Amino acid sequence: MTLAEPPVTPTTLPEPAPAAEEHTEPKGLAIICYSGDLEKTWAAMILASTAGAMAMPTKVFVTFWGLQTFVRDDVRITGDNWMQKMMSFMQRPGISHRKLSKMNFFGMGPWMMRKLAKQYNVASPKELLEMATLMGVEFVPCQMTMDMFGIKREDLIEGMGDPVGAATYLSYVGDGAAPLFI
Amino acid sequence: MTLAEPPVTPTTLPEPAPAAEEHTEPKGLAIICYSGDLEKTWAAMILASTAGAMAMPTKVFVTFWGLQTFVRDDVRITGDNWMQKMMSFMQRPGISHRKLSKMNFFGMGPWMMRKLAKQYNVASPKELLEMATLMGVEFVPCQMTMDMFGIKREDLIEGMGDPVGAATYLSYVGDGAAPLFI
Amino acid sequence: MTLAEPPVTPTTLPEPAPAAEEHTEPKGLAIICYSGDLEKTWAAMILASTAGAMAMPTKVFVTFWGLQTFVRDDVRITGDNWMQKMMSFMQRPGISHRKLSKMNFFGMGPWMMRKLAKQYNVASPKELLEMATLMGVEFVPCQMTMDMFGIKREDLIEGMGDPVGAATYLSYVGDGAAPLFI
Repeated sequence: MTLAEPPVTPTTLPEPAPAAEEHTEPKGLAIICYSGDLEKTWAAMILASTAGAMAMPTKVFVTFWGLQTFVRDDVRITGDNWMQKMMSFMQRPGISHRKLSKMNFFGMGPWMMRKLAKQYNVASPKELLEMATLMGVEFVPCQMTMDMFGIKREDLIEGMGDPVGAATYLSYVGDGAAPLFI
Repeated sequence: MTLAEPPVTPTTLPEPAPAAEEHTEPKGLAIICYSGDLEKTWAAMILASTAGAMAMPTKVFVTFWGLQTFVRDDVRITGDNWMQKMMSFMQRPGISHRKLSKMNFFGMGPWMMRKLAKQYNVASPKELLEMATLMGVEFVPCQMTMDMFGIKREDLIEGMGDPVGAATYLSYVGDGAAPLFI
Repeated sequence: MTLAEPPVTPTTLPEPAPAAEEHTEPKGLAIICYSGDLEKTWAAMILASTAGAMAMPTKVFVTFWGLQTFVRDDVRITGDNWMQKMMSFMQRPGISHRKLSKMNFFGMGPWMMRKLAKQYNVASPKELLEMATLMGVEFVPCQMTMDMFGIKREDLIEGMGDPVGAATYLSYVGDGAAPLFI
């Protein structure tokens, strides 16, 4: 999906937004995108893009392995010192390079999952991320993770918010946003 | 435990429900049952059945690997095409066939866990599921996961709700149910 | 960090607590510390200690593999029968002996993570636990897990609350605490 196309409603968003009519103040969603696994990335992106479509104010705090997902697909090695470089070498960053947490089978598992998704008209994690961003979902990177892994702003995809810490995330929750740790 | 027996209170429900007296409107619980691992299945079922016993309105949205847990124990292979069939072959579905995420040791870990549970009078995931259903907890399958894995209504255990999508889950949360991603 | 030192604000707590000023009643946080992996332990301790610093009333319900994290570092084997002893033998308990869920490389991954953390002035899980306890965060062990794994009060670190069950955890949530399953 490119941004110029008319928005295609994928089968992952099959229903009209029922929440909007039933109550007056949606307090929003505060997702911690912690995992870098393909299937959890998918789950986080489906929830984020659906929340965006339902006009729930949604923030996604991207941390630990999850931050690797938001490194640009064309960046191969990140970090300043050999430890940071080795970590990015062992686990290729980027949303298009996520692996399954199980049944990976040297890439065959993810290939099958992506093939099945296409067959059943389910949007890919990358497409869902683009949709979510278009619909106002804010993705914010964790400053501490950036420091520890040596990941810089220019390594990350465009459109992300300024790096923040756990206190900012908890302030969303303190203000009533529903927390999800994925 | 069969449904005809008088309800035995297991040691996993040792306390009287303190929440019922302390505040007037329990907003309920909205669990995402995402994992298919034995120990997380157990955690989800303990929380769901306890919430049911406390009369908290509780919905469990069953998705991704978690949906395999809700396939009937006597169904061995699910799916229409070879990829879906192979996935169910690699990971046997059904709540009685869950494996530990670590220390599985070709089935010895789960065997030990189940033996210890019986010894200390902890109900099994299957018993907890039956209890939760009896106490009004609603289990709803994820439509998208059913599509992708080729799992049909007749493959699933009895008593589940109609398949829904992420928007329905988020509407529970928007209405004030506390979210848990397990 | 020893408890006698003046509190050093680590880089994991970089911001002033924004939530305290913006709304009047922080309902608190109810964390389920479920995983025993190094990186999830870290995430749970960062959230707990930050919440403590923000004066959010915070309870951490320690259960399943997470309980092994709260066994004293000098206790090597826990349990009464051979199955319980073998489980603690296979997975060394204690917060200083956590392993990464992936890229463990026979201890090299955790060593690198701890080294990077020190280099970037990020407090260790053990330091964060001490900070959180000082700031009033309450850690409560799960009675059922203690029974199943044969872990006794004297095996656990000092300062934990009395063992409770899932009903007590859910009563926190019923009273408005925001739930996180980590």
